[in-house]
Amino acid sequence: MQEETLNLLLRGAEEVLIKQDLIKKLQENRPLRIKAGFDPTAPDLHLGHTVLINKLKQFQDCGHEVLFLIGDFTGMIGDPTGKNVTRKPLTKDEVLVNALTYQEQVFKILDPDKTQIVFNSTWMNALSPAELIQIAAKHTVARMLERDDFSKRYKSGQAIAIHEFLYPLIQGYDSVVMRADVELGGTDQKFNLLVGRQLQEAYGQTPQIVLTMPILEGLDGVQKMSKSLNNYIGIADAPSDMFGKIMSISDDLMWRYFELLSFKSMAIINSFKEKCAINQENPRNVKFELAKEIVGRFHGGEAAGEQALQNFVARFQKGDIPEEIEEITLRTNIPTYAIANLLKDAGLTESTSEAVRMIKQGAVKIDGEKISDTKLMIKAGTNHVYQVGKRKFAKVFIESA
Amino acid sequence: MQEETLNLLLRGAEEVLIKQDLIKKLQENRPLRIKAGFDPTAPDLHLGHTVLINKLKQFQDCGHEVLFLIGDFTGMIGDPTGKNVTRKPLTKDEVLVNALTYQEQVFKILDPDKTQIVFNSTWMNALSPAELIQIAAKHTVARMLERDDFSKRYKSGQAIAIHEFLYPLIQGYDSVVMRADVELGGTDQKFNLLVGRQLQEAYGQTPQIVLTMPILEGLDGVQKMSKSLNNYIGIADAPSDMFGKIMSISDDLMWRYFELLSFKSMAIINSFKEKCAINQENPRNVKFELAKEIVGRFHGGEAAGEQALQNFVARFQKGDIPEEIEEITLRTNIPTYAIANLLKDAGLTESTSEAVRMIKQGAVKIDGEKISDTKLMIKAGTNHVYQVGKRKFAKVFIESA
Repeated sequence: MQEETLNLLLRGAEEVLIKQDLIKKLQENRPLRIKAGFDPTAPDLHLGHTVLINKLKQFQDCGHEVLFLIGDFTGMIGDPTGKNVTRKPLTKDEVLVNALTYQEQVFKILDPDKTQIVFNSTWMNALSPAELIQIAAKHTVARMLERDDFSKRYKSGQAIAIHEFLYPLIQGYDSVVMRADVELGGTDQKFNLLVGRQLQEAYGQTPQIVLTMPILEGLDGVQKMSKSLNNYIGIADAPSDMFGKIMSISDDLMWRYFELLSFKSMAIINSFKEKCAINQENPRNVKFELAKEIVGRFHGGEAAGEQALQNFVARFQKGDIPEEIEEITLRTNIPTYAIANLLKDAGLTESTSEAVRMIKQGAVKIDGEKISDTKLMIKAGTNHVYQVGKRKFAKVFIESA
Repeated sequence: MQEETLNLLLRGAEEVLIKQDLIKKLQENRPLRIKAGFDPTAPDLHLGHTVLINKLKQFQDCGHEVLFLIGDFTGMIGDPTGKNVTRKPLTKDEVLVNALTYQEQVFKILDPDKTQIVFNSTWMNALSPAELIQIAAKHTVARMLERDDFSKRYKSGQAIAIHEFLYPLIQGYDSVVMRADVELGGTDQKFNLLVGRQLQEAYGQTPQIVLTMPILEGLDGVQKMSKSLNNYIGIADAPSDMFGKIMSISDDLMWRYFELLSFKSMAIINSFKEKCAINQENPRNVKFELAKEIVGRFHGGEAAGEQALQNFVARFQKGDIPEEIEEITLRTNIPTYAIANLLKDAGLTESTSEAVRMIKQGAVKIDGEKISDTKLMIKAGTNHVYQVGKRKFAKVFIESA
């Protein structure tokens, strides 16, 4: 096994348990069984989800077998406490539709020939209640209460329903059935991944290696990327949106995205970084490389990335958009912001009536595109470049209060 | 509903939850469904077990339906933690054999026509794992940890396996399936019986009444009656043993046994008590009544009780056994006590060699029966009257050290 392989597999990883055991497994020179579990709910993936999928891809590239687990068994139970009305049980049909959508999305990254999609309902529904009880016998209440969120809830008197103790066990039992060599997950999944190790040991298997990946920050560079925070790049976003959103991130965040989202080697990324540090390279051009790669991945390859770059440049540079644009954050406690108010509040017009007049004259552009709707509502969470006339620019982020 | 009925149903009970609800249910004037759960392991019943069965009988006599539940589902799982090697899983055949033995024994008390014997494996094995999880969702970790033994073990760092939290839920779910109106159990079962109430409520049923019965003291009057403490009266004991053991209990304990084991009315029992208190009646004669009733119950009716009394009297009184016999306790740290040592240690002979000589001469009797074996080993936990010659008597209890 080469040093290089190990470095690739550990690139960007938060933690690996136990590194020495991973090295040993890699030296067995056989395709390892790499497990990662995914929610069976509507899979509208964003780049945050792809951090894990990229890691799976790296294992695939090293010759290992990816077991893409859809945890549909618990999804089909829903929330039996009935407290969470939004968590309705999924039907088998919904699960299958969601699985197809998953495949469509993840096969833009993963190699279908080296990926097995599996559903844990296959083996969980076949269990007898006695077998489920035997699984529960393999773990203790005290160990379960060590999990961070359980411990906090228990101490603060918030109810923990007993079936919540069964879910990590079911996830762990999946590893037993799947004979996983390695399980990947977000850092927030570490406890559950460790339960997998313990159960495999209880069932006489070699415990899986646990490899956790960090949670990706969203466009704001602070909070985790999520749909509800509106700071995400969806992998189904249009090329121009995707490109524009990547161009909107800070330079610091760009290096983070490079490490976790790009398939360029760290050698290349580090050379970019060094050149930027000594002003031999404009970070904007490096960001172009990242944006091209990501757009290309989800929209038909290199040519699509190149096209997105050209469109971006055409819109911004031909419109004489200056390189340095003032960045403004506006807060709203409703989900949208009226364009006329936005232009006034961002200081691009003196008043809302001037804003309306300028729009009617065709003098207002968003990300280089002329707008005509004077009542346009701009969504919270978005980040665009607004232009009034030839000279007035501002990059405005609408933040939800 | 008559006051008298309620008094009968609550006679000897430790606690009833909730009494007002029981009164209400009784006023519905329909046969109530009375649940009691029993272990599926080898049922060698002693009088301690019959406290509960007698209470079932009283409900039956008031027109209610007894559901005699054999908890075979968990018995067939055994102890999945593997820590308790003595708790091997039972096979279906073993469960059925045990159930037959149960029936044979309990139908000496219960009316077979008003008794349904049910097995919880019937519905538990038919559950899907998802349904079991839904049951687990109906209870919380914090409430489960309130159970006395769980709380102690958790605080002292002793492991509680997670499936142990499922067992009370399964017992409770039995009440749901059985639509129990009332559940009887020992005081040590109170927590589990209350889980039944909670689950019934969660499943939209009126919660069952919980009626707990005290744990019967053994022959020593202090510790609970149990086979392992050797202070028990088995319901399969021979009539003479049964009669003799009952005659050996203290007068105080006799009143306790009357309340919990006799079907004589409390009015009669109280009149016995009053007469003894003012020396109008010899407690020994009252004890005869109890012994006759119990022997009759398990050995073919009144005539058998009468016969046992006559045999007892013949052995003891014709042998001029004095009414007051010294009571002696000997301790041993092996399971038996050699007869020669016993006679010497009890002060009935000067030496073990005198003891052997007296036995050979046919001058030694145990409970009125001549013995000839000079090497007889007397079991620890037994209580017999030993006689040497015409005049020397002692009632000797062999206590395990």
